[in-house]
Amino acid sequence: MTATSTDQKTVDTLRFLAVDMVEQAKSGHPGLPLGAAPMAFALYKRTLQFDPARPDWFDRDRFVLSAGHGSALLYALLHVFGYDLPLDELKKFRQLGSKTPGHPELGVTPGVEVTTGPLGQGFANGVGLAIAEAWLADRYNVGGHTVIDHHTYAIVSDGDLMEGVAQEAASLAGHLKLGKLVYLYDANDISLDGPTDLSYTEDAAKKFEAMGWHVQTVGDGNDIDAVTDAVNRAKAVTDQPSLIVVRTVIGFGSPKAGTSSAHGSPLGADAAKQTKATLGWPAEPTFLVPDEAKAAQAESRARGAELSAAWDAKMAAYRGDQPDLAAELDAIASGRLPAGWDSALDALTFSGPTATRTAGGKALDAVAKGLPWLLGGAADLSGSTKTTIGGSPTLSPAKPGGRNIFYGVREHAMGAIVNGMVAHGLRAYGSTFLVFSDYMRGAIRVAALSHQPSLFVFTHDSVFVGEDGPTHEPIEQVMSLRLVPQLDVYRPADAVETVECWRNAVASGRTAAFALTRQDVLLLPVDQAAVRQGVERGAYVVADGSDVVIGATGSEVSLALAARDALAQEGVSVRVVSMPCAENWARQTPEVRNEIAPCAMAKVSLEAGVTTGWSDILGAGTVTVGIDRFGESAPGEVVYAEIGMSVDRVVQAAKGAIAAKRS
Amino acid sequence: MTATSTDQKTVDTLRFLAVDMVEQAKSGHPGLPLGAAPMAFALYKRTLQFDPARPDWFDRDRFVLSAGHGSALLYALLHVFGYDLPLDELKKFRQLGSKTPGHPELGVTPGVEVTTGPLGQGFANGVGLAIAEAWLADRYNVGGHTVIDHHTYAIVSDGDLMEGVAQEAASLAGHLKLGKLVYLYDANDISLDGPTDLSYTEDAAKKFEAMGWHVQTVGDGNDIDAVTDAVNRAKAVTDQPSLIVVRTVIGFGSPKAGTSSAHGSPLGADAAKQTKATLGWPAEPTFLVPDEAKAAQAESRARGAELSAAWDAKMAAYRGDQPDLAAELDAIASGRLPAGWDSALDALTFSGPTATRTAGGKALDAVAKGLPWLLGGAADLSGSTKTTIGGSPTLSPAKPGGRNIFYGVREHAMGAIVNGMVAHGLRAYGSTFLVFSDYMRGAIRVAALSHQPSLFVFTHDSVFVGEDGPTHEPIEQVMSLRLVPQLDVYRPADAVETVECWRNAVASGRTAAFALTRQDVLLLPVDQAAVRQGVERGAYVVADGSDVVIGATGSEVSLALAARDALAQEGVSVRVVSMPCAENWARQTPEVRNEIAPCAMAKVSLEAGVTTGWSDILGAGTVTVGIDRFGESAPGEVVYAEIGMSVDRVVQAAKGAIAAKRS
Repeated sequence: MTATSTDQKTVDTLRFLAVDMVEQAKSGHPGLPLGAAPMAFALYKRTLQFDPARPDWFDRDRFVLSAGHGSALLYALLHVFGYDLPLDELKKFRQLGSKTPGHPELGVTPGVEVTTGPLGQGFANGVGLAIAEAWLADRYNVGGHTVIDHHTYAIVSDGDLMEGVAQEAASLAGHLKLGKLVYLYDANDISLDGPTDLSYTEDAAKKFEAMGWHVQTVGDGNDIDAVTDAVNRAKAVTDQPSLIVVRTVIGFGSPKAGTSSAHGSPLGADAAKQTKATLGWPAEPTFLVPDEAKAAQAESRARGAELSAAWDAKMAAYRGDQPDLAAELDAIASGRLPAGWDSALDALTFSGPTATRTAGGKALDAVAKGLPWLLGGAADLSGSTKTTIGGSPTLSPAKPGGRNIFYGVREHAMGAIVNGMVAHGLRAYGSTFLVFSDYMRGAIRVAALSHQPSLFVFTHDSVFVGEDGPTHEPIEQVMSLRLVPQLDVYRPADAVETVECWRNAVASGRTAAFALTRQDVLLLPVDQAAVRQGVERGAYVVADGSDVVIGATGSEVSLALAARDALAQEGVSVRVVSMPCAENWARQTPEVRNEIAPCAMAKVSLEAGVTTGWSDILGAGTVTVGIDRFGESAPGEVVYAEIGMSVDRVVQAAKGAIAAKRS
Repeated sequence: MTATSTDQKTVDTLRFLAVDMVEQAKSGHPGLPLGAAPMAFALYKRTLQFDPARPDWFDRDRFVLSAGHGSALLYALLHVFGYDLPLDELKKFRQLGSKTPGHPELGVTPGVEVTTGPLGQGFANGVGLAIAEAWLADRYNVGGHTVIDHHTYAIVSDGDLMEGVAQEAASLAGHLKLGKLVYLYDANDISLDGPTDLSYTEDAAKKFEAMGWHVQTVGDGNDIDAVTDAVNRAKAVTDQPSLIVVRTVIGFGSPKAGTSSAHGSPLGADAAKQTKATLGWPAEPTFLVPDEAKAAQAESRARGAELSAAWDAKMAAYRGDQPDLAAELDAIASGRLPAGWDSALDALTFSGPTATRTAGGKALDAVAKGLPWLLGGAADLSGSTKTTIGGSPTLSPAKPGGRNIFYGVREHAMGAIVNGMVAHGLRAYGSTFLVFSDYMRGAIRVAALSHQPSLFVFTHDSVFVGEDGPTHEPIEQVMSLRLVPQLDVYRPADAVETVECWRNAVASGRTAAFALTRQDVLLLPVDQAAVRQGVERGAYVVADGSDVVIGATGSEVSLALAARDALAQEGVSVRVVSMPCAENWARQTPEVRNEIAPCAMAKVSLEAGVTTGWSDILGAGTVTVGIDRFGESAPGEVVYAEIGMSVDRVVQAAKGAIAAKRS
């Protein structure tokens, strides 16, 4: 294929739509679009399989702009290649309520596959998308049918490649030999602070080769044909992910070309005009889409309609031959759960003390039975977090359909890879120790922001970790996670609650995090139906009483019950309320909340973590019992007591709360 | 040098002290000590320059056990090589109050240089230590004196190398050509979940070469001489950091050798005996230190005394020739600040609205004048975070004494590298946007846990970020950081407060994080002395009133003042309290707190972030105004208003608080 003047005009249309968007918004990043427009064109015009009229067509190629600050380029692409993103939206770039926010956001703009901007996330999301594609292909391409067959592409930047989350993901992608993953590295040698050689001088090509990637270099990023050829060679390599190092000039054509000042600010009216003059583009009108680019729009729509129609035909045949699998695929594509997905949960029974991590493992396994597209694993802790799906192999190059993923000691990439798999319609999870949720907050936040039903399973959820000491004992993590908007945090008190939390989290489709115990905890004396409603409401009465409410979570519900017994000896009547999900609780009506934790009663909160925030959850005047300091290295029960998680302390707190309420 | 039977006995002493410690504790990690004891011996016996009697001797070599779960090996080493860590402490491994906690903790055990355990942190800390050594050598080795000349060594594991934080740090170490950094990679092909090839099959040697490291491989980790030779060759390479891949067998000699079950649980009494038998070690007594190992202890002490005495002599000469520099070095070594270090802060003046990031930049620069060993930079955002020290070059291989560090887009490593430099006595900082504090929480937590005076400067601290949108707008971050124990979080309201927060943070020597605005904020009508006391107390009255207290931070203090004006029109008298540091506030007596925010007055909190936690800071019954949702992409002032940060809303909240207080 040889680039034509029409191609060049379309490339320049992308460039100047982006420039005009940034100028109009007086905010944004013109540097990447000017430099990377040719490679983006090569992808959208010559490579990507998509139907702009059906951005949710399941077998489309996925494109990720990991360098999300180049959003203006992405929006220009989506407009020029026929998506429902009119010029009016481009003119509202970075304005309230537009479909063109500052960084691409999943769910806001048709054609945007994942939320990017925080560097490195998109890189790792793409790895998740590619894992999902291979998984789906392995499961659903049977009986001579090929209903899943697409690639994942990304444009990544120096900034992405410097981030640890991307390096972690790259290592796993190479290990998994993700042959349908093709990344174009916009190598412009400039980052925000100046030339990248201020801090970044490694041999990226060699580094990626060492991680098992196929690496090519395109010397001139303006050479659309060279980029296309490299992409085609990359596609031909089916047992390695591909990195194409594309040498570009940031802010190409502008007076600031090749400097960091082209990166993140509007060019300014004069420089914008000058850039247009340099590249032979009319200064006016702005937001110009010449006929050549309009032709691209029409062509793209026609080609897309053909592609997706061809797939529809394949699916029709598939539905005939493989009705069950086809029904699964339809459910995945539309985000539905299979009928009876949770029935195996009903069959779970527990006798005697059980660690909630153990119960969580059983719940996960039961959900996995009814939800065949649930998959995941741990960051090298699956034996500890109990997150292995029984009867399924390890996901590997030889078995891409395995449901057990060994992410390696790569927490942050794990989170972002989960988000990528979820963006593809799978239900995916990642797990590690609760204290290491700190390593992956970047990914957790993006999941929540994007309303993704990602599942994060954290175990070893308190100082009961014990001997491993303060480096491994979570203190602030549970409350810290609760602070993330749109994230539901579950800290179940016993095995049955754990099961119901799993049911609730999967059913809700919200982003969820679990905090589970390492140590055994008692089974509460409550029947499963009551627990189920309790989890839905976020809180419920475990043992009734009239003088004071102790609202507790997780392992501390047992402690609350012990304190209740002790207080009963002294004639004090305690209501113990288990609060497995503060977010569900916050969504209840005041009436429901008052029924469970009456305003008129004194209140004590009890959780083996920071106390900050508990009076917001349980109400003004709550006396808090928790741990506002780092832990200690000693056997778990010793640390627990040493640090004040004792019946005595709870008894004192309850008496104090009652006295304060009366005064 | 050829290994002798004495050497072998000492190696086995290390092995079995570790095994016995783990058995006694019934908890711990025997696998690494059994495999890595020979290389650890090679370091402590033949390589490291240290004086066990003076663990704080300034020119000692630094050793980091990045694989902190191998702590039993480190404690055995410290005992056998003569540190003040008696056998009794080894017998109390992982018990409450011992000097031998589950993972190594800075400040708890003599000879432990940094806190490790969360994987990857130690790797990056070591890079910070090596940057510090090179910086110190450049500044202080003058006039023919060589008072700084040591190496930084680490033992790192597969798990460390998989972590993004380590990969980020490795890339920067290669860029900076840290020739005195030598890492031994305990390559045992096993991680917690099983063989590393479940998830980790990259060519680590080639990858490190691509990052500019000198790489060697030792095929047999039991060959002490081969390890020693490799270390010596690594030391001879002075313009590259060195990685020595040492092939070992996890749990060497035990029945579980070479399997993941040797990693993280005691061998068990029988297997421990069997291991001793296999390696020709007596089963009893446990905690055996044979004469050969005792000789090592004595030798090490004698050698150490000589080494440190020789340095004392060098320092004596240096003090004569270079009294000013020698005084600096003494201050660094003892953690003292220079006299008058903050005098340039007094000279700062501001007129008119100033972004607190700008004021922060000036404060930093002023502190830098009086504190010559303050250095740092940003994660590729120094232009935005305003954290460049004027008049000093960029730290680079050619200028290791530069004070401006370009960390690259590597937030997590930045945090851990800051911690490493601080562990060496320097005062160091790292900066990025507040929202990306999420990427580096792992490092921030370790700093706080270790009582390190690391400084983390976060700017763009609210939805006023504006057009970049919700991916870049912090919501939960300020409160989230406040939840970390032992971390002081400063959110100053204007330029003068910012200056005083810097003074307070540096003077306190506590771990500190700043949240600074991108946008201009008004200068408050308060004199600097009052602000200074206000920062020390964490809160102070900016404008007095009697009906209601509005406690606000950062940019919201201006909003509180505007609401005060509006309420004055309605005859409501508002006291505005600026609360730049909730941690200082929490340390005040109830009397002081009541003087500033009287219990008798109604209270409103005001902060452009999550409201959770504010009633803990300001008191029960506080009506909170904040942002409990993600942001939007639009101009900052538009988002701010859209999201409810308006005079109107504050006015309503204040009236509501007054009404509730009266009822």
